[in-house]
Amino acid sequence: MTEQFVYYFGKTRTDGGRDMRALLGGKGANLAEMTSIGLPVPPGFTITTEACDFYSTHDGRWPQELEDQIRKSISVLEKELGRGFGDVHNPLLLSVRSGAAVSMPGMMDTVLNLGISMENLDALKRMSGNPRFALDSLRRFMQMFGDVVMGVPHHDFERALESVKAGKGVKLDTELDAGDLEKVVALYQDIYLKQTGSPFPADPWEQLRLSINAVFDSWNNPRAVRYRELNDIRGLRGTAVNVQSMVFGNMGEGSGTGVCFTRDPSTGADVFYGEYLMNAQGEDVVAGIRTPHPISDLAQENRKAYDELIAMRETLERHYRDMQDIEFTIQDGELFILQTRRGERTVFAALNMAVDMVEEGLIDKETALMRIPAQNFNQLFASILDASGKKGAKLLTRGLNASPGGACGAVVFSAGDAEEWARAGKDVILCRQETSPEDIGGMAAARGILTARGGMTSHAAVVARGMGAPCVAGAGELVIDSDAKTITVGDLVLREGDIVAIDGFTGEVFAGEVKVRDSEIVQVLKGAIPASESVLYGKYSTLMGWADQVRTLGVRTNADTPKDTEMAVLFGAEGVGLCRTEHMFFEGGRTKSFRKLILVAERVKRLRERIRAGSGDTAEMENQLKGPEGIYREALEELYPLQKRDFENIFRALNGRPCTIRLLDPPLHEFLPHDRKGQEELAAEMGVSPTSVVDTVNALHEFNPMMGHRGCRLGLSYPEVSEMQVRAVIEAAITVVREGVKVVPEIMIPLVGHDEELRIMRRLARETAEKALSDNGLPPDFVSYSIGTMIEIPRACVMADRIASEADFFSFGTNDLTQMGCGFSRDDAGKFLEDYVRMGIYEKDPFQSIDEDGIGAFVTMAVQKGRRAKPSLKIGVCGEHGGDAASVNFFHRAGLDYVSCSPYRVPVARLAAAQAVIEAGR
Amino acid sequence: MTEQFVYYFGKTRTDGGRDMRALLGGKGANLAEMTSIGLPVPPGFTITTEACDFYSTHDGRWPQELEDQIRKSISVLEKELGRGFGDVHNPLLLSVRSGAAVSMPGMMDTVLNLGISMENLDALKRMSGNPRFALDSLRRFMQMFGDVVMGVPHHDFERALESVKAGKGVKLDTELDAGDLEKVVALYQDIYLKQTGSPFPADPWEQLRLSINAVFDSWNNPRAVRYRELNDIRGLRGTAVNVQSMVFGNMGEGSGTGVCFTRDPSTGADVFYGEYLMNAQGEDVVAGIRTPHPISDLAQENRKAYDELIAMRETLERHYRDMQDIEFTIQDGELFILQTRRGERTVFAALNMAVDMVEEGLIDKETALMRIPAQNFNQLFASILDASGKKGAKLLTRGLNASPGGACGAVVFSAGDAEEWARAGKDVILCRQETSPEDIGGMAAARGILTARGGMTSHAAVVARGMGAPCVAGAGELVIDSDAKTITVGDLVLREGDIVAIDGFTGEVFAGEVKVRDSEIVQVLKGAIPASESVLYGKYSTLMGWADQVRTLGVRTNADTPKDTEMAVLFGAEGVGLCRTEHMFFEGGRTKSFRKLILVAERVKRLRERIRAGSGDTAEMENQLKGPEGIYREALEELYPLQKRDFENIFRALNGRPCTIRLLDPPLHEFLPHDRKGQEELAAEMGVSPTSVVDTVNALHEFNPMMGHRGCRLGLSYPEVSEMQVRAVIEAAITVVREGVKVVPEIMIPLVGHDEELRIMRRLARETAEKALSDNGLPPDFVSYSIGTMIEIPRACVMADRIASEADFFSFGTNDLTQMGCGFSRDDAGKFLEDYVRMGIYEKDPFQSIDEDGIGAFVTMAVQKGRRAKPSLKIGVCGEHGGDAASVNFFHRAGLDYVSCSPYRVPVARLAAAQAVIEAGR
Repeated sequence: MTEQFVYYFGKTRTDGGRDMRALLGGKGANLAEMTSIGLPVPPGFTITTEACDFYSTHDGRWPQELEDQIRKSISVLEKELGRGFGDVHNPLLLSVRSGAAVSMPGMMDTVLNLGISMENLDALKRMSGNPRFALDSLRRFMQMFGDVVMGVPHHDFERALESVKAGKGVKLDTELDAGDLEKVVALYQDIYLKQTGSPFPADPWEQLRLSINAVFDSWNNPRAVRYRELNDIRGLRGTAVNVQSMVFGNMGEGSGTGVCFTRDPSTGADVFYGEYLMNAQGEDVVAGIRTPHPISDLAQENRKAYDELIAMRETLERHYRDMQDIEFTIQDGELFILQTRRGERTVFAALNMAVDMVEEGLIDKETALMRIPAQNFNQLFASILDASGKKGAKLLTRGLNASPGGACGAVVFSAGDAEEWARAGKDVILCRQETSPEDIGGMAAARGILTARGGMTSHAAVVARGMGAPCVAGAGELVIDSDAKTITVGDLVLREGDIVAIDGFTGEVFAGEVKVRDSEIVQVLKGAIPASESVLYGKYSTLMGWADQVRTLGVRTNADTPKDTEMAVLFGAEGVGLCRTEHMFFEGGRTKSFRKLILVAERVKRLRERIRAGSGDTAEMENQLKGPEGIYREALEELYPLQKRDFENIFRALNGRPCTIRLLDPPLHEFLPHDRKGQEELAAEMGVSPTSVVDTVNALHEFNPMMGHRGCRLGLSYPEVSEMQVRAVIEAAITVVREGVKVVPEIMIPLVGHDEELRIMRRLARETAEKALSDNGLPPDFVSYSIGTMIEIPRACVMADRIASEADFFSFGTNDLTQMGCGFSRDDAGKFLEDYVRMGIYEKDPFQSIDEDGIGAFVTMAVQKGRRAKPSLKIGVCGEHGGDAASVNFFHRAGLDYVSCSPYRVPVARLAAAQAVIEAGR
Repeated sequence: MTEQFVYYFGKTRTDGGRDMRALLGGKGANLAEMTSIGLPVPPGFTITTEACDFYSTHDGRWPQELEDQIRKSISVLEKELGRGFGDVHNPLLLSVRSGAAVSMPGMMDTVLNLGISMENLDALKRMSGNPRFALDSLRRFMQMFGDVVMGVPHHDFERALESVKAGKGVKLDTELDAGDLEKVVALYQDIYLKQTGSPFPADPWEQLRLSINAVFDSWNNPRAVRYRELNDIRGLRGTAVNVQSMVFGNMGEGSGTGVCFTRDPSTGADVFYGEYLMNAQGEDVVAGIRTPHPISDLAQENRKAYDELIAMRETLERHYRDMQDIEFTIQDGELFILQTRRGERTVFAALNMAVDMVEEGLIDKETALMRIPAQNFNQLFASILDASGKKGAKLLTRGLNASPGGACGAVVFSAGDAEEWARAGKDVILCRQETSPEDIGGMAAARGILTARGGMTSHAAVVARGMGAPCVAGAGELVIDSDAKTITVGDLVLREGDIVAIDGFTGEVFAGEVKVRDSEIVQVLKGAIPASESVLYGKYSTLMGWADQVRTLGVRTNADTPKDTEMAVLFGAEGVGLCRTEHMFFEGGRTKSFRKLILVAERVKRLRERIRAGSGDTAEMENQLKGPEGIYREALEELYPLQKRDFENIFRALNGRPCTIRLLDPPLHEFLPHDRKGQEELAAEMGVSPTSVVDTVNALHEFNPMMGHRGCRLGLSYPEVSEMQVRAVIEAAITVVREGVKVVPEIMIPLVGHDEELRIMRRLARETAEKALSDNGLPPDFVSYSIGTMIEIPRACVMADRIASEADFFSFGTNDLTQMGCGFSRDDAGKFLEDYVRMGIYEKDPFQSIDEDGIGAFVTMAVQKGRRAKPSLKIGVCGEHGGDAASVNFFHRAGLDYVSCSPYRVPVARLAAAQAVIEAGR
């Protein structure tokens, strides 16, 4: 039996369809599909991926049947179009394109105009009535074939073309006439001969054979192999080859080409959107040399083509049930469609269209949820420049809309200045020629980032998007002089401190103050706009409702204040997954109390140890202990009511939702000043000598504080601090429960690596809680608290079974787990992590999106071991990965109960959690 | 069928034996054994661990048969001894002792003289002819029974005793006469009544029942439970109870007691060794109030008993095939043996005896190997004070021999001074009242440590033993004044800088210079003494030969210099497992070259990146690059020949053994000065501005350098440095191979966490090696190098299968693996790790002995995954754990191919590796 290696698509017959991606590649399957549903696709055929596989595994030989099948298909094509391949009088011209089952952009260029040669040039001149067109087509073909198929250096051709233009004294290709192009062709022939050792092939079959082989070969070129490795593309057999008859939009004024979208890709509005150019090829529209016209103008220019396009828009959306991005060509008044694909869209458009299409009955809710790019979803909540404010402001220039959101502030020119001004409470816009890794601190401190150089993937753009900071990049009209601290645009000069506003949605840059507003959805959530007045909010709310129906993963928030907690609840948080108590010590007078404690803590600890060990004069040491121990206890008593009040307000804001409270975590030195002046001030404030402050700071200094005296290690050294915190939690809970509000406090012991650490700390917490309850004359179950731990040390993952026996819950601290698991200090890794991502060592920054292979394996191990030891164990994650869509997807698969993330990330996590369910079910 | 819960031992019959430890406990089994072989053991019986198990699981009830079996045994005992239990005229007195299958010291005290009461006191007075003895026995029994069995506070009794002594104006118990002791007994009775609510029980059966229950109960007291948890003692059913007839060494001048060793426990010489006291009880010998006589004096005092003892020595050694520690009592001229157990011994004695006993045919070689305490084995190689030097020096005092070895140097009084003086090249002895964790740095810098306070387990003693530094602790005669910087001993005052010598083997402290010599074995190894003249070396060499026959684990050394390599080879190292190349950069002029490189490296890297990315004016940047790139290459060319020469000499010293060379590992800032003065000097030396040096230091600063820009991350950023190193390795190998010496270089890429890192670095290393060989016109296999990696990042363990596919070998860096796996910074963990060990969280410092549960699990995982992916993978360990006996044992079980440790630890590792094989086979 003969295997079918060639699938025809055309009026005569169409062998393939959209479900045959594996065999025909994405492009081939789609061309067949469009042909089937009656769209005017230039006919052609697809050579299967199996043919490619055979070629790759048989030393570049073709399957026996292939040549015959190609010849037969060409002969069908010839009949259908009434032209002959290689016919000197009426030549059939072809395009040859690769197309694998998974899109691999840039793997191989396209060869157009194949079949043309010196021998049929005259026929082409005659048929098109346009000798220049014929010569230009030949020139383009020679260049593409030479470069793509035969590896002739691209710039050899460019240089030849330049020399002819220079000879004529012109600049643009279009200024060359037919005679000039004849010279170019002659030069190209010489180049080809010199580089390949053979004359340019006149035989179209030879051209086709070599082009097909070049596509086959491209499957295994190092770039493609690497691309598949990096993108984890496995199990494919090769690329398909699409051979299609040529149509020309540049044959004259009756011809043209364009690109259109079936809906508005920026707003999602249900309007036809696009642009076109007459007498042009596709690349002319993209290159931007001529300005294309809006698609609606085509109605005047060519009513028939326009009506056909409108009908096609309908057909395609109904058929593909999604917004399409269509390339079309009009050849001598006749419309052809060359490609349709899913249209790229903003997240606003994605949201609007997804909900609309469900209402239109085009798609179901699950499909709608999958249509929203979760990784960009929080653009919906980015602050925006006030629209009327923008109208009144002076538009300076327009750059790339590199990271969404609006920002306004004083211009600064260095990262250091940005940090300093921000510390002084000022809003700043960091303006740089381009940013580099050393600027990270300043970028984080700034409200927005503006650069003169760099594209959508420049450092500034990538980092700003990662941070969620507005950014306008590559605003090339700006002359930024960091030394002089000026920005010059035309005649205007801005200096340090001058106010500018940037719009990361549009790329606009304004001089002067523009009001920055919450996004529309945030305004509705905060009650500033009634929900009924916001269409966008309605769509958002509908979609979130669907997400919540679908998802099984809980979503909590990381919040340390009642304000953040309230906002997170508005965003749909189902509880607090991480309340960092140390942040509470930095407020107002509390720092003073805590510093007082720190200054005596080590002395208290050491004296107690010596008394316990019985070394030295016990009475004398007990005497020495009195003073510092008094200060120690006094500081705790000062902190206690403040902590209690914080917890009360958070419990009230949660209104019955659970709250995971982490006991003090950071090393103590973080609470002390490290500069001389600050130390002197502290000494004066505390009434001690500056030396004693310096001594304490030095004693607390650590070489690697990340792995130093912190987390539960503090609780083990200074149990009274943990006791104070637990007491505050339980007493706050008692107060709020008595108000009639349910409270579910979960006390979390950080940085546990050994079950024995948790055993000791858990006992301390339980005894403290029991005492607090009995001191209040309450039964032990009056507050239903639980005690668990963070899993953030690699050792805790391998020992998770033992640790689970002491824990009611686990919460993964994936930031620290990534640091210790990968051996990257987050504060220092900037120096090499970017290189790592660039070199392809890590696909993504493992601090932004969880490293599934490595750190994910630790998570999975801990979940399995923990649940095996204690099936009821509740497991969540409170690292920043909880707000990253890809990571949320992983956590769902790993079987976690919930994720916790910053308030503004809660909707992202809800959506990603729903998508994970849908994806898993497919 | 009736179960047997009581096992009798005596002349009548003996039910048990040495193999019944599980049922009778260690002590019970041994008492039965000694009775069986005809030794004069006071008869008695053992209640089984199963009885204890029944008691524990049945609410404190005895098995039905137990009471009857006890009564029957007592009745046999009564018959055998001709006394009656509770007989007022001729009372049988008993001792009651616990004894589990595994020794659990301190779990429960002993109750002696049980059976005595007011009612039979007169009989006892009459029988002993010694009223004071009878009263004293009663007093002691009341105190022990009250304290141990009934929980009456110990100090209540002590206070009563003191009051009687005070009333009489005497200080010692022995100064009290019978009348005084009657008063004491009366007071004791009151105390007992007051504390327990009942009068002291006169009924011996009541005394016995309560004592047995107290022993049973002690099995589950918190202290014992904790002890078993900590020591991982599992699967035992309970403790046995040993009830034995009393004998008295304090009945008069015909009685006595003593302790002896069947050989000399400090040298191992085959001589009878021990001491005794007449008219005394065991505790008097231990308490040191009276000075005991050497055992040989007993020949004069009581020839018969002495001859019996000599015969017993023979019998016991033949029977137990090991040196025994014997407790004996002579009651009225009759010899009794109360206990025999394995005698504690120095490592010198252990070595001598083990080899002797093999030669005597007492034990086999495997037993001999197991007899040597591997953890102390390297005391054999500790430096010693020259014997004749000691004779000429002034002996100041004698303290505890807390850590072996001899040291001599200038007295300093603070850790800071110790470090400073040591940096200035001086040998110092750190003298402290007692040391504390802050002193660690100074202790490491000092040649030896001397303290006035603290015992064998004091901080100074423990840390010094851990470091292998000589230490004399608790030299109480010394008055150390750290403020005045003086040591006063009697009239003599020593000041800072005065020379002292300490002998950690003997505890001696000398004033003035005493020559420090290599240990005898090291002198033989270095050729300073002919092997034939050293008996000790002969024994050592014999034992090591046996170890090498048995072990399967290879032993290599960590050495960076030819000198260390040579020494390690003498110690039996089979190769270098870790050659740290960075140490080579600190020598002589090399630091300058490397610093020059560092000062330009970052700039070179950044410019190259920008040129590659095409951002900015390429020509301009290429121009800017020229200068720094020139300096960069020049520095590498300066370093290259020096590195090459180092490798050549190491290869020569290894003479065919393999050598694992680690590419540059530490962060670059470690190579730059961090003080202002050093930075200014460097700037002057390099001809650059001080600011630029400071800028580089600041740019290289890291918050957590342990997890920063180091290891293979340096090689990925600065590939030329790795290239230079690999080239030096291969070129050195070529040179040495051409000399006719085999060279086996193993190039090791450090700090790999991701297979892709290794893939890139391996390619670089292979290409460099291939180029070096082909540049020399040599075939690729002229040098048989291999390329592998360190496994020291937790992620590398979970990804070990993928990493193995890129590696010829793995070498575990267990130091860093412990740091990252447990989340402990080694430099900082001192602050809490000691507390952790004290609290029982970690049993041992995980940096000294591998944390088998946690870090061990990572090792096992990596071995399994690595070998599954590549069965031929060679696996070793090069962390400092490679020289720790317990860790070596683990590495053997984990299936490693070799361990690598510091040169002086090589013999320890060889021995421990052999012991691991023997242990595994048992």
